[in-house]
Amino acid sequence: MALVTSGSASSAAAFASRPAQLLAQLCTVRQQSLALCEPLTPEDMMVQSCPEASPAKWHLAHTSWFFETFLLREFLPGYKPFHPDFLWLFNSYYNAVSAQPQKKLRASFSRPGIASILEYRAHVDAGLQALFSSDAPEEAQRRLVLGLHHEQQHGELMLTDIKNAFWSNPLRPAYRDGALPEAHRSILRQLGSQNWVPFAEGLRAIGHTGDGFCFDNEEPRHRVWLDAFDLASRPVSSAEYLQFMEDGGYTRSELWLSEGWDTVQREQWEAPLYWHRESGEAEWTVFTLRGEQPLRNLLAAPVCHISYFEANAFARWAGMQLPTEAEWEVAAAESHLAATPEKSLLLEGDSLHPLASLPEDGSEGALREMLGNVWEWTGSAYLGYPGYAALPGALGEYNGKFMSNQMVLRGGSVATPLSHIRASYRNFFPPHTRWQFSGVRLARHQ
Amino acid sequence: MALVTSGSASSAAAFASRPAQLLAQLCTVRQQSLALCEPLTPEDMMVQSCPEASPAKWHLAHTSWFFETFLLREFLPGYKPFHPDFLWLFNSYYNAVSAQPQKKLRASFSRPGIASILEYRAHVDAGLQALFSSDAPEEAQRRLVLGLHHEQQHGELMLTDIKNAFWSNPLRPAYRDGALPEAHRSILRQLGSQNWVPFAEGLRAIGHTGDGFCFDNEEPRHRVWLDAFDLASRPVSSAEYLQFMEDGGYTRSELWLSEGWDTVQREQWEAPLYWHRESGEAEWTVFTLRGEQPLRNLLAAPVCHISYFEANAFARWAGMQLPTEAEWEVAAAESHLAATPEKSLLLEGDSLHPLASLPEDGSEGALREMLGNVWEWTGSAYLGYPGYAALPGALGEYNGKFMSNQMVLRGGSVATPLSHIRASYRNFFPPHTRWQFSGVRLARHQ
Amino acid sequence: MALVTSGSASSAAAFASRPAQLLAQLCTVRQQSLALCEPLTPEDMMVQSCPEASPAKWHLAHTSWFFETFLLREFLPGYKPFHPDFLWLFNSYYNAVSAQPQKKLRASFSRPGIASILEYRAHVDAGLQALFSSDAPEEAQRRLVLGLHHEQQHGELMLTDIKNAFWSNPLRPAYRDGALPEAHRSILRQLGSQNWVPFAEGLRAIGHTGDGFCFDNEEPRHRVWLDAFDLASRPVSSAEYLQFMEDGGYTRSELWLSEGWDTVQREQWEAPLYWHRESGEAEWTVFTLRGEQPLRNLLAAPVCHISYFEANAFARWAGMQLPTEAEWEVAAAESHLAATPEKSLLLEGDSLHPLASLPEDGSEGALREMLGNVWEWTGSAYLGYPGYAALPGALGEYNGKFMSNQMVLRGGSVATPLSHIRASYRNFFPPHTRWQFSGVRLARHQ
Amino acid sequence: MALVTSGSASSAAAFASRPAQLLAQLCTVRQQSLALCEPLTPEDMMVQSCPEASPAKWHLAHTSWFFETFLLREFLPGYKPFHPDFLWLFNSYYNAVSAQPQKKLRASFSRPGIASILEYRAHVDAGLQALFSSDAPEEAQRRLVLGLHHEQQHGELMLTDIKNAFWSNPLRPAYRDGALPEAHRSILRQLGSQNWVPFAEGLRAIGHTGDGFCFDNEEPRHRVWLDAFDLASRPVSSAEYLQFMEDGGYTRSELWLSEGWDTVQREQWEAPLYWHRESGEAEWTVFTLRGEQPLRNLLAAPVCHISYFEANAFARWAGMQLPTEAEWEVAAAESHLAATPEKSLLLEGDSLHPLASLPEDGSEGALREMLGNVWEWTGSAYLGYPGYAALPGALGEYNGKFMSNQMVLRGGSVATPLSHIRASYRNFFPPHTRWQFSGVRLARHQ
Repeated sequence: MALVTSGSASSAAAFASRPAQLLAQLCTVRQQSLALCEPLTPEDMMVQSCPEASPAKWHLAHTSWFFETFLLREFLPGYKPFHPDFLWLFNSYYNAVSAQPQKKLRASFSRPGIASILEYRAHVDAGLQALFSSDAPEEAQRRLVLGLHHEQQHGELMLTDIKNAFWSNPLRPAYRDGALPEAHRSILRQLGSQNWVPFAEGLRAIGHTGDGFCFDNEEPRHRVWLDAFDLASRPVSSAEYLQFMEDGGYTRSELWLSEGWDTVQREQWEAPLYWHRESGEAEWTVFTLRGEQPLRNLLAAPVCHISYFEANAFARWAGMQLPTEAEWEVAAAESHLAATPEKSLLLEGDSLHPLASLPEDGSEGALREMLGNVWEWTGSAYLGYPGYAALPGALGEYNGKFMSNQMVLRGGSVATPLSHIRASYRNFFPPHTRWQFSGVRLARHQ
Repeated sequence: MALVTSGSASSAAAFASRPAQLLAQLCTVRQQSLALCEPLTPEDMMVQSCPEASPAKWHLAHTSWFFETFLLREFLPGYKPFHPDFLWLFNSYYNAVSAQPQKKLRASFSRPGIASILEYRAHVDAGLQALFSSDAPEEAQRRLVLGLHHEQQHGELMLTDIKNAFWSNPLRPAYRDGALPEAHRSILRQLGSQNWVPFAEGLRAIGHTGDGFCFDNEEPRHRVWLDAFDLASRPVSSAEYLQFMEDGGYTRSELWLSEGWDTVQREQWEAPLYWHRESGEAEWTVFTLRGEQPLRNLLAAPVCHISYFEANAFARWAGMQLPTEAEWEVAAAESHLAATPEKSLLLEGDSLHPLASLPEDGSEGALREMLGNVWEWTGSAYLGYPGYAALPGALGEYNGKFMSNQMVLRGGSVATPLSHIRASYRNFFPPHTRWQFSGVRLARHQ
Repeated sequence: MALVTSGSASSAAAFASRPAQLLAQLCTVRQQSLALCEPLTPEDMMVQSCPEASPAKWHLAHTSWFFETFLLREFLPGYKPFHPDFLWLFNSYYNAVSAQPQKKLRASFSRPGIASILEYRAHVDAGLQALFSSDAPEEAQRRLVLGLHHEQQHGELMLTDIKNAFWSNPLRPAYRDGALPEAHRSILRQLGSQNWVPFAEGLRAIGHTGDGFCFDNEEPRHRVWLDAFDLASRPVSSAEYLQFMEDGGYTRSELWLSEGWDTVQREQWEAPLYWHRESGEAEWTVFTLRGEQPLRNLLAAPVCHISYFEANAFARWAGMQLPTEAEWEVAAAESHLAATPEKSLLLEGDSLHPLASLPEDGSEGALREMLGNVWEWTGSAYLGYPGYAALPGALGEYNGKFMSNQMVLRGGSVATPLSHIRASYRNFFPPHTRWQFSGVRLARHQ
Repeated sequence: MALVTSGSASSAAAFASRPAQLLAQLCTVRQQSLALCEPLTPEDMMVQSCPEASPAKWHLAHTSWFFETFLLREFLPGYKPFHPDFLWLFNSYYNAVSAQPQKKLRASFSRPGIASILEYRAHVDAGLQALFSSDAPEEAQRRLVLGLHHEQQHGELMLTDIKNAFWSNPLRPAYRDGALPEAHRSILRQLGSQNWVPFAEGLRAIGHTGDGFCFDNEEPRHRVWLDAFDLASRPVSSAEYLQFMEDGGYTRSELWLSEGWDTVQREQWEAPLYWHRESGEAEWTVFTLRGEQPLRNLLAAPVCHISYFEANAFARWAGMQLPTEAEWEVAAAESHLAATPEKSLLLEGDSLHPLASLPEDGSEGALREMLGNVWEWTGSAYLGYPGYAALPGALGEYNGKFMSNQMVLRGGSVATPLSHIRASYRNFFPPHTRWQFSGVRLARHQ
């Protein structure tokens, strides 16, 4: 995750830059984090069920730490930190700020209790109100916007982490009750039913453009040569993925990257994360934020919670490839529809699970679900763009130091807020991880 | 941990056997478990900070599970289990009852919440009231007594587990506020100031005797030949242990068992668990259930939280040995004083840390602090007594299946209730563990 | 492994103590080590196939290091060490002598080559000849005897290590060609066909007696009280063990110690080490030093290569127990037959696999195969005898520092030389290990 | 590693394609593998000192297996395999051919002995002679060329694996005696003394061209857009790397990728692999194939045996970047000098350690040492080129399945044969590995 401060024209688009508006947006984002915790008990907020995840309580504290550390301590005269130990206690990985507790210790932070964390949040919010009630320095404004995006990222992680926590709980509790939207059940997306959208070869540019906010890893915008390619009109569905499974997908080494095959063997993978079948039973169930659901009701929805290894094996099985991130971004940017986030497929749609969206009339041939629904693994490793340089100082650790052994995902998911996503957004995870809402869209090349 | 049902004369001494008394004792023990949790928040009760420990909430549930599984389901006609999944959810290790969740998953049990666990306890208590309101079968009475001792064992674990949890928390919160008792600070027990109590050679008997309760591993009582030995009048003090450290105890391989030395190197041990010294500082602090304390205030108190490896190395350094469990038990049994639990050194004393007890006038030469203060590592491996046979059925898993790679400890600690300890009691832990209140008393042999 | 120097009367019985005889015995033992390597190539002598094992070449060097370090460097005036680095290079675990290479590095010692190692041996032999050609100090004589026993121990390890090495080789080569002795195939020892030899209760003594050599851990001789017990006339046969397997032995948790059950699950044990069955096949084969053999030809021979966990589970399944080491030793000592090593069941018998020995006429009721055939797991943890103290100096590390988490085995095996074994001999290994010729003899108690 | 068979014009350039020439080249390459083993004993050829490495003997066998499996079994009528088990025994990772022994077991293959392996080689060579003595199918010819390159790759691995093996040996033997070439000691390359060679922006093409041999991962040739960049005239020297170390390079987290920093901490890296300094000493030594050398004699030579993490941290410290593989290849291709392998910097130069090559007069500004001396880490992840598709069949496993979590290196090293390297060659290793002759050349971008 990274901050852009380069370029005087750089200003926040998704989040407007005038102080009054900033404060309103701050209020919205901070409130949304709390709203995400509404179904959770203080005990739920303690669980850390896998090395990638953090307890919900920690997310609430760390996002406040970010504002306190990078804004209030630096820009608010006379600011009194909430607690002397919090500077290092809730530091995630910023070595330039302080040492940090080992990540796995986060589950031991029963103290401070949730009440203290909420006080901490209020204390930080009050500080931000004070800082932005009059003219705040431009750098402070930029950092506020960064902090908002940072908190939105952690909001998405809160959802995926709690999903994993509830999955680890043998009782498999539901985060939210109530049925999944009807659309999930309506269409059976057969293998091959997607359309191919063609893109011609040529010299293009990718990277952030315009005057909105972006992370540092989306810059600089730069030219790339693309050969002609076709991109699938929609992500791969669960029905299609099931065909891969039934065709022996998880038992055929020739479909897999070597590390992927090792992972399949070692972890005994035989389906996406959260798919489950009692031994001897024929039917799969899928664990969702609304509890366990029969797979048959979700066949039309995009497959999610697959790793890069699975996405890659599926593509090979299908005789296709994954798009590069440049192809993906160019494709999205060239289509007004694709480049416009659709609320129903994002956090605001409140579906909590990828939707089987229906093509609008006449739009069957268009790219759909590019922004929202599921993150889409690309075939690109997460590396700096040409000319990329990490920012100086602690904020330089936001994004740049993770540029090894990770793959880029694009497009956001049902856990991503509308104001957070854009076509140039680069998400990244190690290729074996699958606790995010990660799916796959196919590409093909001549 | 195991139940004795053999022998028609076997009845509960510490816990009387008549139903009315049993119910009163049940009330006391169950209430004590809740009292131990009084300083804890629901979040505290979620923490599981090392592989040996469990969350406090889990202890509350599992002890109820024990009564439900072995009493209510078997002996109470028409008993309706509280929740269909709890039978396996809160099973610790009884394979004959059901499969169990992996131990490390206990930290993910945010649901059922603490409120449900308390309801579960109440439901079980009501069942036990019903079962024992009229004539319950003798086997049920025996199992109730077993269940009470089982719950007392878990009460001790709750204290040591939460101590470890709070130690793992970077803020190092205190379980209880308030100063340690004055006695901790008064006497400096110098090395060698202990007296030696002599015991003559002869054929003796060890193992439980009398008609009180005991675990199955305390039986059968059997003869042992003992050569003459001397036993120290009190456990080793922290001051004495500090001398060992200052004499290079943790850097001299010749003092250590080979596995102990490997552990010292791998874990970088240089002091007992919970002793801490900032790099560059001269003085040690000791983390207690009442927060961090300067070691200088605790020098006279018995050293605790040492492993068998450390106890053994200390003894070798001192030119002495550890007593065998037979020596320890014979010594305790031969002294009325030593065989009488002293309230101030047990849970009821509420010191929450081992005390530097003063010898009474004229008693300097007697054995002191045998029952209470710190568990004392013996030089005996935990094995079945001659003729020992695990009980049939699931309860046979209580104690017998742990008879490998563990050493016996004797005597109880400040975390052990008065009604729980006796001279024949055999506690056992792997030789590297040290999160219990475990110390050492020296012996010498010709 | 340890040296006895206590007691002026201590002299070598198995190995005579006069210099001339000592030299003759030295010649025999040193030659035997080389004879054991005769079937091996220089490449075979490099293999280290499990953490417990060492390459054969290392054994040849380390046994020479022992003589060089503890005899020649100390007692031979003007002795010139063979190579300056060998002092630490071939040190196994004597911290008081020098640092040591990590054990797992032994497989990287391609240099010095086998030719150098043989030169090293010759150099050390020449030194020993010089030292003992005239009157050597008594301590030197004692250490020579210790060194001979030390080398015999490593000879046994060479056989078991190379057996494991050849098992790890996918081609499963044989150490020696030729059929196993006919006796292996002749008798089918049915379950329960063993006799029970009764021993009365009483005060006995165990520990080494007489003026022969023993290791320090066999001393001091001391009194023990034994309750009455019966000991099986012979070790458990492979046929009997197969019945245990066919009765679900490896799938019934109630038969196992908790750690044993964990090991079964984690290692997916379903038979003794070296037993193998292709998936889908009905018949087991057994890998021996003479290559793979059908189990049906070995059913009457004692089962071997089982861990303590398996021995213990078998005994529980059979409704019996393991003898304690005191019971074992008393039983052996009370029978002239049992206390006499039988050449055909030891290394000199050259069977290279446990034999199905026939009872002599009229001796069906006697203890047989106590010394030789298979090491027998006892129910005793490996601890110091009352009054045991490790020797001062580096040789004190021989035995004493391993007194944790190991169980005692008694009696020697087909890989043990005749002059090396005796009734008081205490072998010891961790309870999960099974690469030695380790079997089990049952006991029963009232 | 993979074969290109696509395109009818594809023929072997480095290795000519006519059968007679092929046989001559076969003879050369096969002989070279044996020559590399000339300094090794059979014991040396057993050592496997790290998970990445294999024993030399295994390399000799596996390269023969490759010819036997992909040529003789398929194309030579009546070919009789040398040994029925070798098909799977010496299979490295081709799942489509057979199962394989675990890699770590290769050190247990004392049998077949080296004599058998040499017979195996002769048997395979004879088969190849027979196959190519008359008109062999074109596919067989292509595979022979592939097999030659395959064997050359393993020749390089043999050198780096044996270097690691000898480093693991506490005696640190030398592979070859004799001084390093004089040139190593002559020039001190100061930091910043390299020249920058400028390259203009533009649309270029990379990937293999011409009719010579290439691996499948070098194809298809395709267009890339490059922004302007400068490339350093030579690789980073050891003197320069020492400055990085002395400036706290290994202790400053801000210079490192997050995974790199974790590795530094976990592995306690403080210098390149094979650099060593006794505690308390000031001077570094460097372990080479000619034994340990003082670093001061090697300061002018390129630093080698660094990981991607170290290369990346060095570049960040220097305020520069690593070139992408496209930049590297375009730069090499545009310079006749750079694109011409120089014998003295390759295996044929027999230096066995990177050389401090002198610029020829007037060539100070030119790129030097691009082909040979050290492999150069690029900033590019190892992924398929646009349109890349793994070959069908087992040979498709040669290269394509390793396209995750690896970085590309370019240019060859002193362990690479002249006929093996070219500008389009893509080598790849995980970012933490450093047992190859891997160094770094800096780039800079506006």
